[in-house]
Amino acid sequence: MNILKFAAVAAVVGLSLSSGAAFPHDGDHIFSREEISAAVGLREAALENSGAYEILESITTEVGPRLAGSPGDAAAVAWMIAKLNELGFDKVWTEPVEIPHWQRGASAGRVLSPFPREMQITSLGLSVGTGIQGLSAEIIHFETYQDLLDAPEGAAEGKIVFISNRMERARDGSGYGPAVIARAMGPSEAARHGAVALLIRSIGTDSHRVPHTGSLRYADDAPRIPAAALSNPDADILLNMLGRGQPVRFELMLDNQDHPMTTSYNVIGEMTGSEAPDEVIIIGGHLDSWDLGTGAIDDGAGIAITMAAAKLIGDMPTRPRRTIRMVGWAAEEIGLWGGRQYGVAHADEIANHIIGAESDFGAGQIWRFTPGVDEGALDVMRAIHAVLAPLGIEWGEGNSSRGGPDTSAMAAAGMPAATLNQDGTYYFDLHHTADDTLDKVSAADLNQNVAAYAVFAFLAAQYDGYFDGRPE
Amino acid sequence: MNILKFAAVAAVVGLSLSSGAAFPHDGDHIFSREEISAAVGLREAALENSGAYEILESITTEVGPRLAGSPGDAAAVAWMIAKLNELGFDKVWTEPVEIPHWQRGASAGRVLSPFPREMQITSLGLSVGTGIQGLSAEIIHFETYQDLLDAPEGAAEGKIVFISNRMERARDGSGYGPAVIARAMGPSEAARHGAVALLIRSIGTDSHRVPHTGSLRYADDAPRIPAAALSNPDADILLNMLGRGQPVRFELMLDNQDHPMTTSYNVIGEMTGSEAPDEVIIIGGHLDSWDLGTGAIDDGAGIAITMAAAKLIGDMPTRPRRTIRMVGWAAEEIGLWGGRQYGVAHADEIANHIIGAESDFGAGQIWRFTPGVDEGALDVMRAIHAVLAPLGIEWGEGNSSRGGPDTSAMAAAGMPAATLNQDGTYYFDLHHTADDTLDKVSAADLNQNVAAYAVFAFLAAQYDGYFDGRPE
Repeated sequence: MNILKFAAVAAVVGLSLSSGAAFPHDGDHIFSREEISAAVGLREAALENSGAYEILESITTEVGPRLAGSPGDAAAVAWMIAKLNELGFDKVWTEPVEIPHWQRGASAGRVLSPFPREMQITSLGLSVGTGIQGLSAEIIHFETYQDLLDAPEGAAEGKIVFISNRMERARDGSGYGPAVIARAMGPSEAARHGAVALLIRSIGTDSHRVPHTGSLRYADDAPRIPAAALSNPDADILLNMLGRGQPVRFELMLDNQDHPMTTSYNVIGEMTGSEAPDEVIIIGGHLDSWDLGTGAIDDGAGIAITMAAAKLIGDMPTRPRRTIRMVGWAAEEIGLWGGRQYGVAHADEIANHIIGAESDFGAGQIWRFTPGVDEGALDVMRAIHAVLAPLGIEWGEGNSSRGGPDTSAMAAAGMPAATLNQDGTYYFDLHHTADDTLDKVSAADLNQNVAAYAVFAFLAAQYDGYFDGRPE
Repeated sequence: MNILKFAAVAAVVGLSLSSGAAFPHDGDHIFSREEISAAVGLREAALENSGAYEILESITTEVGPRLAGSPGDAAAVAWMIAKLNELGFDKVWTEPVEIPHWQRGASAGRVLSPFPREMQITSLGLSVGTGIQGLSAEIIHFETYQDLLDAPEGAAEGKIVFISNRMERARDGSGYGPAVIARAMGPSEAARHGAVALLIRSIGTDSHRVPHTGSLRYADDAPRIPAAALSNPDADILLNMLGRGQPVRFELMLDNQDHPMTTSYNVIGEMTGSEAPDEVIIIGGHLDSWDLGTGAIDDGAGIAITMAAAKLIGDMPTRPRRTIRMVGWAAEEIGLWGGRQYGVAHADEIANHIIGAESDFGAGQIWRFTPGVDEGALDVMRAIHAVLAPLGIEWGEGNSSRGGPDTSAMAAAGMPAATLNQDGTYYFDLHHTADDTLDKVSAADLNQNVAAYAVFAFLAAQYDGYFDGRPE
């Protein structure tokens, strides 16, 4: 047992540690006994009451839906500035982000024949509209996106393509990738086959009449056709109708509007480092949400977890060595605009971004800690993990983390990162739906998340070396 | 162990029984060994494949929503006539039922201030409209209907009353009564206190953005005010807003219409008795549904279960002594119109209605068999229960069954009845919502229901005595 492990274990089991000056380093091991003790103290304080649930209650009650570019988005920016100041962050500011401004309008979907029926649909994010007159056409069914790819040229001419495969449930969210391609790429692929519109089964694991929205990506080489998702039960009903072997005609109306580019804001709060204030540990979540729910799990939870973690660190008697920077990222849902523009704006400060992480996978407990650092820094990450392990958090292999969607641009440019993987078993029941509301969130689960983020951010801020391979 | 119990047990454990003429009676016990054996055979055949799921798939796919008086209601009547004929019922007919014709229109609910927000609402059934201009007023909150009753005169003058208590989950549905009073009586009570509209928390046990509709009952002594239900998550959000202590203004629009009385139909199919064709065992479900879902559990399941049970009995080599009459009751949801008018139209034939039951509590398994018969006939009901018990069905005390909502008028007039109580633990997650769709239903659970109804109807039809105390 090396001395680091001893210190961690001693702290966990509550052995008393000698006090001293603010976190002095003891010889050649990674963290001092005082640092480990302080990290354990943060962890236990968070588990007791992290304050994250109150933050989440505040944003979901007072702001609610906050689609990038909407009045709700502006309200969220104002809310976050006020909340960071209220919680005692040392420095609070915004950075402008230029974003597309897409507006969801009224929508309707119905089977015209053979069994007339109103269906529960929602427009995919960024879909062009149909105009209020709508359009109608016969359905052509493909089980998967691959089946559509494999279809002969012109196979969907004048028709509405319907892709029906269902997303698989998994703790690590691994069912999302194979399913979401129908949403992202389906519209342009359907258009290439001559379709006038695309319908997909919702990319989600629930069975409720709450369709899942989410962004599509139009390709440059295909007409832009309207695209919408049916709720899972509606997709089942449509399949049953198609099973009769008669043509099924569908009417779709999406009164969406595209407006000129507009401005949103990354909202940033810092607990300023005591010794190396220019070196930042960057954590956060995205501040925008889809407009159907209140953005409780996606991603009010990420905002609340990381804000509460930084606040807990700020409540310590002394600031850590480095700065904790907590960011509410702008316009993630419609294309990672906040994270990408931050990467550009701060490209010359990349070396000062010591390590980054983002919470954007709901409000489930963290079950794994996955590094994305220089191999020489893995022992530091293991030392941090030793303090996370009592939270039920496993060590994640692979060392390929980019933190989260909004830190990925910086990570691609060389910033070290970590992922605190949340349990996503039920995440895709709610993801991008009207059902993304506070009642689905457990305060205890949030506390566990805050405990992990506080430990990670604090120890990374105290560590006097680097995670990217440069010498100390 | 008496001989009846012996026969039942022998049948259950698969002892071979001597064959004979069609169900001869053996001396003085209630059912012959052949009758018990035949009942067990029905039960086991139903568990194997009752056909109920296919019937339910058919009505939910081909008809779907069927609000009494709507085009869907007419489609359901046509569907049921065709299905009964297709399944080989001996006689199929309809009986007209005069019903109110209420039409749901577009609806919208939103918080105007302090935190503007679209809310998920649905009109209560039979609510007057607001006109498309809607109305807006400040919310006044009462936790319960009783609190509203206890409020001083004029307490809600010019306001929108919001009743927020949540229905409790229970297998026997016992949470429904205490909660549903807010829906049934709340509108008139709010009006008596001066309110301009009523909002209730949905009468349901789920946490999804799918509000629960259901009928209100206007009293003659109060103005008719519009009334709607918020989904459970929306009710939570509204409570959180009210918790800020600021006035909350709400806008409500319900574009409902009342039309002149119209005609719907009880749809009736019979397997005609071989010895006493005028004596009927009456089973069924209600054919109408609310319009938000597809009426899968309420009450397509009841239609499918009892239709499949009668069909299984009809598939036997010989018809039972008495007639099995299977009824799809009209317009149950908007006030039991089919059951009540049947009671009037058949008042002089009440003595020929030997016993009745209705399946109208979803698609969960039956867990209890509750009689409502003359005390002298309880031993017959216990003999029937002996064949039901292997299905996991308990004996229900109290002897106060009236069968179900649509048999209650006949039962009140003296018809014996039984309730085959379904597990309602999850029923009120879906009840009266858009989420009432086929994907929630298990074919195996339907089969268990059919097994119980087939045993009950067959043995009641074979029994050569009566359940109402008259001599054999």
